[in-house]
Amino acid sequence: MKTGKQSFSYSPAPVIEASGTAGGPFEAAGSMREAFDILFDDLYMGMDSFEKAQQKLFETAASEALRHGDFSGSDMDLLFAGDLTNQMTSTTFAGRTLGIPYVGLFGACSTSMESLALAALTVASGGADRVLCGTSSHNAAMERQFRYPTEYGAQKPPTAQWTASAAGAAVIAAPNGKQGPVVTKATIGRVIDRGIADPFNMGAAMAPAAVDTIDQHFQDFHTTADDYDLILTGDLGRVGRMLALDLFAEKKIDMPEEKLQDAGLMIYSQNQPVNAGASGCGCSAAVTYGHIIKGLESGNLSKVLIAATGALLSPVSYQQGETIPCIAHAVVIEQPKGGGA
Amino acid sequence: MKTGKQSFSYSPAPVIEASGTAGGPFEAAGSMREAFDILFDDLYMGMDSFEKAQQKLFETAASEALRHGDFSGSDMDLLFAGDLTNQMTSTTFAGRTLGIPYVGLFGACSTSMESLALAALTVASGGADRVLCGTSSHNAAMERQFRYPTEYGAQKPPTAQWTASAAGAAVIAAPNGKQGPVVTKATIGRVIDRGIADPFNMGAAMAPAAVDTIDQHFQDFHTTADDYDLILTGDLGRVGRMLALDLFAEKKIDMPEEKLQDAGLMIYSQNQPVNAGASGCGCSAAVTYGHIIKGLESGNLSKVLIAATGALLSPVSYQQGETIPCIAHAVVIEQPKGGGA
Repeated sequence: MKTGKQSFSYSPAPVIEASGTAGGPFEAAGSMREAFDILFDDLYMGMDSFEKAQQKLFETAASEALRHGDFSGSDMDLLFAGDLTNQMTSTTFAGRTLGIPYVGLFGACSTSMESLALAALTVASGGADRVLCGTSSHNAAMERQFRYPTEYGAQKPPTAQWTASAAGAAVIAAPNGKQGPVVTKATIGRVIDRGIADPFNMGAAMAPAAVDTIDQHFQDFHTTADDYDLILTGDLGRVGRMLALDLFAEKKIDMPEEKLQDAGLMIYSQNQPVNAGASGCGCSAAVTYGHIIKGLESGNLSKVLIAATGALLSPVSYQQGETIPCIAHAVVIEQPKGGGA
Repeated sequence: MKTGKQSFSYSPAPVIEASGTAGGPFEAAGSMREAFDILFDDLYMGMDSFEKAQQKLFETAASEALRHGDFSGSDMDLLFAGDLTNQMTSTTFAGRTLGIPYVGLFGACSTSMESLALAALTVASGGADRVLCGTSSHNAAMERQFRYPTEYGAQKPPTAQWTASAAGAAVIAAPNGKQGPVVTKATIGRVIDRGIADPFNMGAAMAPAAVDTIDQHFQDFHTTADDYDLILTGDLGRVGRMLALDLFAEKKIDMPEEKLQDAGLMIYSQNQPVNAGASGCGCSAAVTYGHIIKGLESGNLSKVLIAATGALLSPVSYQQGETIPCIAHAVVIEQPKGGGA
């Protein structure tokens, strides 16, 4: 199952049996409305704090995934999930609600693919029959933790990204003839730090990690960009994506511009004031489990490499003068020929 | 490999090929001095912040584990690790130093066994040949994050626990005739919350999670306390351990008092002012990889069940009036007959 230096090959390839997504009002006004199962029209989502609203987002995405597969929580052997709130309370409190044996994961925004890669490993190795995995983020909960409370109206430079209020979850299962896209490969990233210290330019900090992991993935599997319909990063934003393209060119890795897309540039419409694009653990999860899965099921896509990137800083590490260490984990999702596993 | 409802059986059982530990000055004065490979005589450990000192602790434990096995970082396929600082910067910054493909895990103090359980799963499934795993904690970094800066001299009630400045790491490998104790089983816990809201009584909050996971472990493997030389919790402290014994009795689960020991009651001496005992992600890791491994290798122990417990609160969740959700993950470590794998 270990392949090359940093990768897993899954055999038999676990199937994504069901998935679910949830978003907030700003996401409802974006360009990927159709990717969401549930859209809340208020940022509090019926809860009394933004952190609890994020918990609600994750619980909603999880229960949509369960509903689509006609499952209850007790059908899941494990929950692999995480988020960016301090001590990941939004996820762990959702774990309390769901009651599923819980493995907490932290890789900042890379947690979306970290959780999928480990869920697939556990299912492929026979450690579980079914695993629920996913991530969430909430704009107002993250803004006040990492920067300023939204009410302060602090200005941001054009390189800054906008945390999406979104969540995505999926049920990963042993194939056994089940229908759905399959998880075939994954590459676990290293911590990469090129000395960027500006938390308002996360895209620049994360781009080298994305390129390092995608490069390693190509080496481990002897593939190139040609082998995929789409290479999706999440979330480099506009600045990070351009830098990633430059870095691929510098390394002489062929990466056609139209093939490298970024979840942070897909979720909002052009006229929304999100500076360099979206970010947040829930962004790549919602785009993957909402939009990409639909593309695979409809036949528009057949093989996608998703590299989720995370900036592993904290407000304290920034205040102590540290640079921003970053990571990217990549997963390959394919639609089996004939549409079923 | 899935066994019962919440457990893994590892076959072939991965071996703990090497381990390393590091501690601070308070730990040097404790009753488990011999469990530490390196003891720092200053709480800053040569760094300029407590958070970076914690990073240094983990890097030291990791490099001791590598040194004992005559390894370099490049011999490790993966690093499974985590801690309790916000966004786990102490661990992720150590991941940057070590350069090993990194899987961040968060389960508060249960991360010590969460990381061992997943490392063993990955090795047993052929996903990696060698995995480095471990956890760390630092008294002053945690005190100022969760409670007050130490300098404030805030008083604590007798039920409060003392965060250990400690780290433990281990190299988990495919057996292939290697020497060392082996990881044979694990049970992944559910999030359990019995309504305790007092962060100065974590032992009471965590005891039900420890009992739930140990009970489930016994059910999944049809075992009892008789099947183990020692059942080690980490870290319930004095209050939590007494409550756990009461809960076992209430559930009519036989649990001889002398068999249930707690890492939080082993690391310090009686005359150190640690109230109800030690806690922190590094405590159970240092006791396991320092003390327990030595006991297995010397033949004093042959089969140990270690249930690491975590309190999944944050200062924000406490301030928002939430109770404390807890979790426990359990791992069985055995010494193969004849001393080798």
